[in-house]
Amino acid sequence: MAVHPIDFELQADAYSTPELRAIFDERARLSHWLRFEAALAETQGELGVIPQASAACIVETAAVERLDLDAIRKGYQISRNSVIPVLKALRIACGSEHGEFVHHGATTQDVVDTGLMLELRDALAVVTRDLRSVETGLLALAERHRATPMIGRSHGQQAIPITFGMKAAIWLAEIRRHIERLKRVASDALFGQFGGAVGTLAALAERGPQVKQRLMSKLGLNHSLQPWHTARDNVAEICSVLTMATVSQAKIANEVFELGRTEFGELREPGGIPGAMSSSTMPHKRNPVLCQRIVVLASHVRSLLSVVMEAMLQQNERDPRALWSEWLAVPQIAVYAGTATTYLDQVVNGLEVFPEDMLRNLNLHGDLVASEWLMFRLAGKIGKVKAQKVLHRAGEVAAEKRLSLVEILRADSEIGSVLNDDDLTVALQPELYSGMAASIVDVTLGAVRSARATESA
Amino acid sequence: MAVHPIDFELQADAYSTPELRAIFDERARLSHWLRFEAALAETQGELGVIPQASAACIVETAAVERLDLDAIRKGYQISRNSVIPVLKALRIACGSEHGEFVHHGATTQDVVDTGLMLELRDALAVVTRDLRSVETGLLALAERHRATPMIGRSHGQQAIPITFGMKAAIWLAEIRRHIERLKRVASDALFGQFGGAVGTLAALAERGPQVKQRLMSKLGLNHSLQPWHTARDNVAEICSVLTMATVSQAKIANEVFELGRTEFGELREPGGIPGAMSSSTMPHKRNPVLCQRIVVLASHVRSLLSVVMEAMLQQNERDPRALWSEWLAVPQIAVYAGTATTYLDQVVNGLEVFPEDMLRNLNLHGDLVASEWLMFRLAGKIGKVKAQKVLHRAGEVAAEKRLSLVEILRADSEIGSVLNDDDLTVALQPELYSGMAASIVDVTLGAVRSARATESA
Amino acid sequence: MAVHPIDFELQADAYSTPELRAIFDERARLSHWLRFEAALAETQGELGVIPQASAACIVETAAVERLDLDAIRKGYQISRNSVIPVLKALRIACGSEHGEFVHHGATTQDVVDTGLMLELRDALAVVTRDLRSVETGLLALAERHRATPMIGRSHGQQAIPITFGMKAAIWLAEIRRHIERLKRVASDALFGQFGGAVGTLAALAERGPQVKQRLMSKLGLNHSLQPWHTARDNVAEICSVLTMATVSQAKIANEVFELGRTEFGELREPGGIPGAMSSSTMPHKRNPVLCQRIVVLASHVRSLLSVVMEAMLQQNERDPRALWSEWLAVPQIAVYAGTATTYLDQVVNGLEVFPEDMLRNLNLHGDLVASEWLMFRLAGKIGKVKAQKVLHRAGEVAAEKRLSLVEILRADSEIGSVLNDDDLTVALQPELYSGMAASIVDVTLGAVRSARATESA
Amino acid sequence: MAVHPIDFELQADAYSTPELRAIFDERARLSHWLRFEAALAETQGELGVIPQASAACIVETAAVERLDLDAIRKGYQISRNSVIPVLKALRIACGSEHGEFVHHGATTQDVVDTGLMLELRDALAVVTRDLRSVETGLLALAERHRATPMIGRSHGQQAIPITFGMKAAIWLAEIRRHIERLKRVASDALFGQFGGAVGTLAALAERGPQVKQRLMSKLGLNHSLQPWHTARDNVAEICSVLTMATVSQAKIANEVFELGRTEFGELREPGGIPGAMSSSTMPHKRNPVLCQRIVVLASHVRSLLSVVMEAMLQQNERDPRALWSEWLAVPQIAVYAGTATTYLDQVVNGLEVFPEDMLRNLNLHGDLVASEWLMFRLAGKIGKVKAQKVLHRAGEVAAEKRLSLVEILRADSEIGSVLNDDDLTVALQPELYSGMAASIVDVTLGAVRSARATESA
Repeated sequence: MAVHPIDFELQADAYSTPELRAIFDERARLSHWLRFEAALAETQGELGVIPQASAACIVETAAVERLDLDAIRKGYQISRNSVIPVLKALRIACGSEHGEFVHHGATTQDVVDTGLMLELRDALAVVTRDLRSVETGLLALAERHRATPMIGRSHGQQAIPITFGMKAAIWLAEIRRHIERLKRVASDALFGQFGGAVGTLAALAERGPQVKQRLMSKLGLNHSLQPWHTARDNVAEICSVLTMATVSQAKIANEVFELGRTEFGELREPGGIPGAMSSSTMPHKRNPVLCQRIVVLASHVRSLLSVVMEAMLQQNERDPRALWSEWLAVPQIAVYAGTATTYLDQVVNGLEVFPEDMLRNLNLHGDLVASEWLMFRLAGKIGKVKAQKVLHRAGEVAAEKRLSLVEILRADSEIGSVLNDDDLTVALQPELYSGMAASIVDVTLGAVRSARATESA
Repeated sequence: MAVHPIDFELQADAYSTPELRAIFDERARLSHWLRFEAALAETQGELGVIPQASAACIVETAAVERLDLDAIRKGYQISRNSVIPVLKALRIACGSEHGEFVHHGATTQDVVDTGLMLELRDALAVVTRDLRSVETGLLALAERHRATPMIGRSHGQQAIPITFGMKAAIWLAEIRRHIERLKRVASDALFGQFGGAVGTLAALAERGPQVKQRLMSKLGLNHSLQPWHTARDNVAEICSVLTMATVSQAKIANEVFELGRTEFGELREPGGIPGAMSSSTMPHKRNPVLCQRIVVLASHVRSLLSVVMEAMLQQNERDPRALWSEWLAVPQIAVYAGTATTYLDQVVNGLEVFPEDMLRNLNLHGDLVASEWLMFRLAGKIGKVKAQKVLHRAGEVAAEKRLSLVEILRADSEIGSVLNDDDLTVALQPELYSGMAASIVDVTLGAVRSARATESA
Repeated sequence: MAVHPIDFELQADAYSTPELRAIFDERARLSHWLRFEAALAETQGELGVIPQASAACIVETAAVERLDLDAIRKGYQISRNSVIPVLKALRIACGSEHGEFVHHGATTQDVVDTGLMLELRDALAVVTRDLRSVETGLLALAERHRATPMIGRSHGQQAIPITFGMKAAIWLAEIRRHIERLKRVASDALFGQFGGAVGTLAALAERGPQVKQRLMSKLGLNHSLQPWHTARDNVAEICSVLTMATVSQAKIANEVFELGRTEFGELREPGGIPGAMSSSTMPHKRNPVLCQRIVVLASHVRSLLSVVMEAMLQQNERDPRALWSEWLAVPQIAVYAGTATTYLDQVVNGLEVFPEDMLRNLNLHGDLVASEWLMFRLAGKIGKVKAQKVLHRAGEVAAEKRLSLVEILRADSEIGSVLNDDDLTVALQPELYSGMAASIVDVTLGAVRSARATESA
Repeated sequence: MAVHPIDFELQADAYSTPELRAIFDERARLSHWLRFEAALAETQGELGVIPQASAACIVETAAVERLDLDAIRKGYQISRNSVIPVLKALRIACGSEHGEFVHHGATTQDVVDTGLMLELRDALAVVTRDLRSVETGLLALAERHRATPMIGRSHGQQAIPITFGMKAAIWLAEIRRHIERLKRVASDALFGQFGGAVGTLAALAERGPQVKQRLMSKLGLNHSLQPWHTARDNVAEICSVLTMATVSQAKIANEVFELGRTEFGELREPGGIPGAMSSSTMPHKRNPVLCQRIVVLASHVRSLLSVVMEAMLQQNERDPRALWSEWLAVPQIAVYAGTATTYLDQVVNGLEVFPEDMLRNLNLHGDLVASEWLMFRLAGKIGKVKAQKVLHRAGEVAAEKRLSLVEILRADSEIGSVLNDDDLTVALQPELYSGMAASIVDVTLGAVRSARATESA
């Protein structure tokens, strides 16, 4: 059985999804390598670099099911090279006449790098699609709770009101920025690799650049003017974008976790299958497992990003110490990022929101929450500095003795006379004091909808 | 005296530059905060939110030299808030009438975040400028050494030839990509912050968005539709771009270091001031200190990036645990990144290149370096699989006994008769076998020059 | 003014303490280097390696105030070596006759490494002392709140009761383990360095080992049989112990932060100086700034540890790329770790505990908290599996409708008749259900006191 | 097929070993959990906490092959809890009478934590055993090459001679320190977990501590006085020790890699199976794949350590966000660390050493390598400062013009006459100038052998 939870069979699908595994599992990677070899042979056949018959044979044979996997397995017990056993199996399957034109002019890393880019292309598409679904959920939440009051908090302390829609709108804008980043790297940072031993295309000489260009065009990847065997900035950028998108999601997950704590009760991630217990001894508990997993995945993604950043330090023309380090990290980043997105999709689109509990918490401090409001009102009458002092003193008393701030102020000989009914509006209904929260929702919804409209156009 | 080497006075300027320190030192940060307060007051004066006279007074007074720094110092001994002592000093300097309109409707983090963005703007400009100078140096190196042969290496082993110009061209393309990334974040990711306690602009209500927009316009920063107090993706992206640019530079520095080792002798970073010894006991040694420092700086930048990525995990509407963690990391990232760039600028523009030593190393393995070439020649005559076997066997003998590969092949009854003079060209002059190296230089020079032309147009 | 907050002058002492700065500031480092040179000269004078008069002169002259700091500053503008300008100044101060015996047989890194170890010795003593003070505070908290009931929480959800003393006892045991680790590395991992250019003591030959041993004995450091210029495991271990100690403290700080949130109100870090506002607009807010700073410091320490771990990868006999990377990281780790300990010392020894709020929160869920207890009681009567089902169902109803669990069970025709008064004890007073919490406090107090008694004996 | 290379089937055993996989694969983890449940039931049967018949049944049934794995798999599709599906299967297998006493008084994390500690115990034993074999290899290398001269290098530059034995002895001492660390944590840091929902042992009350103690004794783990559900310092310490041991190994691997580069040719890792090609186009190349993999593994271990350090930040009584993050990291750390050790074992015990090439490299700089020696000789005659100047100048000329340093000095009117035959010994045979290198080997061999003798006694 598997050691790594990505591949667990019993406790399956907790740290990966079937769709993502199908992009990165050993068979899929093999098939991407064969796709490279097939496209290379086809290209070289078309350009007369290798015989057309050999090209045709390679194209037809380059499929996992045509190869002797057992021989490949044994080959890897002998060879420490990443692809030689596969190439050998392909050559054998092609027969000696055509087989010798397999992998013509390419080097191991050309295959591995191009394979990785094909995998990243698929993974980016999956993550972007699921992040759009997260976005859809956030659009609905922001709209629905445009004016649902809740307390805003800073330093872990209650401050003044916001609306839940505003919180969702800020998440929404952040997710949209990540979608734009993902689209950018999917368009600009996916390059195929074809350079031969040290990137000079020595084996093909003058025909090299043309083969490379046509090959990448067949594979649907960008074509780089230089070899990038040891220039890994595009890989690093893709990983950095995936990481940022995942950490933002973990931030949202943490917020749902925190606001779902028993003492808050404002949000709750959707329950699992009815009847499934989350605690063996406390049957009433419902643990926010999806949110927890998102945070875990993001923690590992961050750590793997640091591997990728370090692996940019490559020596000479090719350096497997750094390359394999990257190679070991990148699929995990993609799988974790994609799995986290799937979880957040569930959380956001099934989120339970409890406006009454939000209001209850908002009123926990009584009218103290209106301090800022009162300060601005009083400032206009007695000056800001003095207003601040008065409210600071009154606030301390109110907090310590759990009294009403308004009562204390009213009882103040000097201040009491200055306060009018208008001044007390917010003190009586603190939830009104949410400033431009709803308006922030509106402009955000407008901007995101407009971006989405452009996309689908 | 200072604890942190950025601020060392004796061993000064090793981990920072005067220019970068002037962007981020405590006085500069103070002045950026005051710039925020001045622009805010000016805006609010123009829009009638605060009295014009007060605005004018604040604008005039908001300068470091107008404030009582000693009072600020004492203020920080009492207050644990990041800016309150500064605001208090500004209020006092403005007098009670106007002072109360200082910081109207803003929160501490509005000041700190906007200050950071102003600092990053300056730092990005410095790094980009210096990276362009690195690029200039690389353009010259690539062009000059377009056809200078050297051995390509992979797995730490000699492989087949490249040209030094090609190596420089690959660096050049990578640096150009970083310049484009830096330009992108300088244009798209620098946002001011203005939201009040929880981002709702509650104190200004309807007038808030207008104040915010005009304020950012005055400061030359982008204006965001939402508060981003706990949405740090833009900061993370800027840091990630700075990190990638620095690590690529460390890769180049490591390469100069490695190829400058006594056993290689192919490259050497420019010497320091004549007469300066780098070793107290081995007077002839010249240590590649600039390259070493670049690697050190990149190592710390990478580590600080992981702090910034983690600090994206912010709670509720404001979370100083994460915010201050980011705040502590970001200036260091910028200073280190900028300092590294300064060093690489010196290295690249003063690089000593030793073509003769490159050629000597290229010939270290004798004609073994021509194996691939011979394989392709023989493949056309006896088939690739057979050619590979023959060459593998001959290569092993040649390597073990330090014999000439060509001699061994010639002595082979079967192969010897097949080889002709043409086949031996590369075996006799392995440096000719650099494939498309020079052509890769040409297309790269063209592409980079065209990008630069667009910039200066 | 300084760039790095460790060295800030206005906002001073937030990320460092005067005591720690005095160990690591540039002047202190210089003085540690001079201490090495003095001890070396003294040793070599005693053993007849250098003239006694020269030794005496060097010992007398090796003091910061005897050197021309301005010349040193200028020396560093020319030399890229870490100590040559200092050695030169010392030689000049000693005069030509004696000066030439300065640094006899040593290499730059011998000075720098030994200096670092002297600094770490002082820093470890400071951290250990302050951690003992934290321990004292935790001892008192655990004892005082041995039986103070509060709700235990897992997955962010209320579970069953603990006592606050038990929580403090778990912290206490963890801090004690860190004290033991700190003592261990202070005793076993502090080594001086003396090996010359490549560690062979070539300049001193046979007299080398004796010089080295006596030198380290003078300096109070361990003496290693081998040079460790590129064997950095002891440094890494010291840093790893400092890191773990700091992260444990951040965990405690986070807990105080979390349990001090408005919705909890169970704990509060001690307030600052009276009258100091922590919010400019919400005068009643008291932000847990000390706890926040501890978390920030721990975040940076963790990140710096990853630099130190990476810097174990050193090339050949000396490798400044890794060495300087370590050198830049270690003092920051020590300063941050020490500063965090100072903060936690304040937090723990001044912690405000609110037992009434703990009890209020404990009762938030009504008698649902007694589910486990009831399950065990019912299990004895109707079997565990059935009991679990019954309670799960009843618990869901109670949670959803905010009813009393006991009322629901009593109303159940089957269960109601089975429940007796004893079964209801905990349901009526859930705080009684804290199991062995108080006993855990007792055994922990005993163990820690016994360890402390041994120390002071 | 598997996604993670630890579990690859075709390219198997590259990032794990069968032995380590057998400790950590899903089936093994399941069996460790069952071992916990069996030992718990047995203990509780003995102490009369549960019926003896039930205990006996659970002990007998708690085996992977007795459970319905398919049901467990389906259970995990419903439950998000880590162990409930396994407990359910065990209960069913035990039948309703006995099944209800499964997992009595325990919580999920008790099982998972104790399982992890059992796994770590096995993994530590494997790593320590293999590190001892590395040590054996290093002992032999150090002894055999006690006096084999090679050039010492610093800053990437040739400095003065060492012996290869001394290099091996420094590695040896470092590996020995790691063995001591591993032994320490294996003895002091492995604790079982048993505390129930929040660590209070509430379900067992007074009998809890006794059950816990006897349970841990059965399992062969240390018994902690407190629950450590959220006190993870022991786990962090184990991981930190494994990490340091792995990074030291990567340092050695990097050194073999570097000194095996074509331009050095001093060391070579043992070849693989004869006939296995490491390059498809350059048949003569032999790539240092084992060393490369060690470096890769260490890079990932370091990154995973940062996850574990961060995961020490746990909230309240149990916090799966951090716990699962740790749980995902630790087995990977152990597997990577163990696999790296296996590779280094092969490298060290099969290392090819080329003394002739070492000597050739040592003489690369001609007699320049004797600069330090000559300086000390001349210093005694003309003073150190003057000697330094003379040699610096002569050294520069010698290096630039590739002349003999001795010839230049001899030609110097002033110096030439001072030099005698003794002074020239080292200049003529620089390899003699290796100082105390051989003696360092001797003392190290003595110390390590003595430590090993104690172990086996």
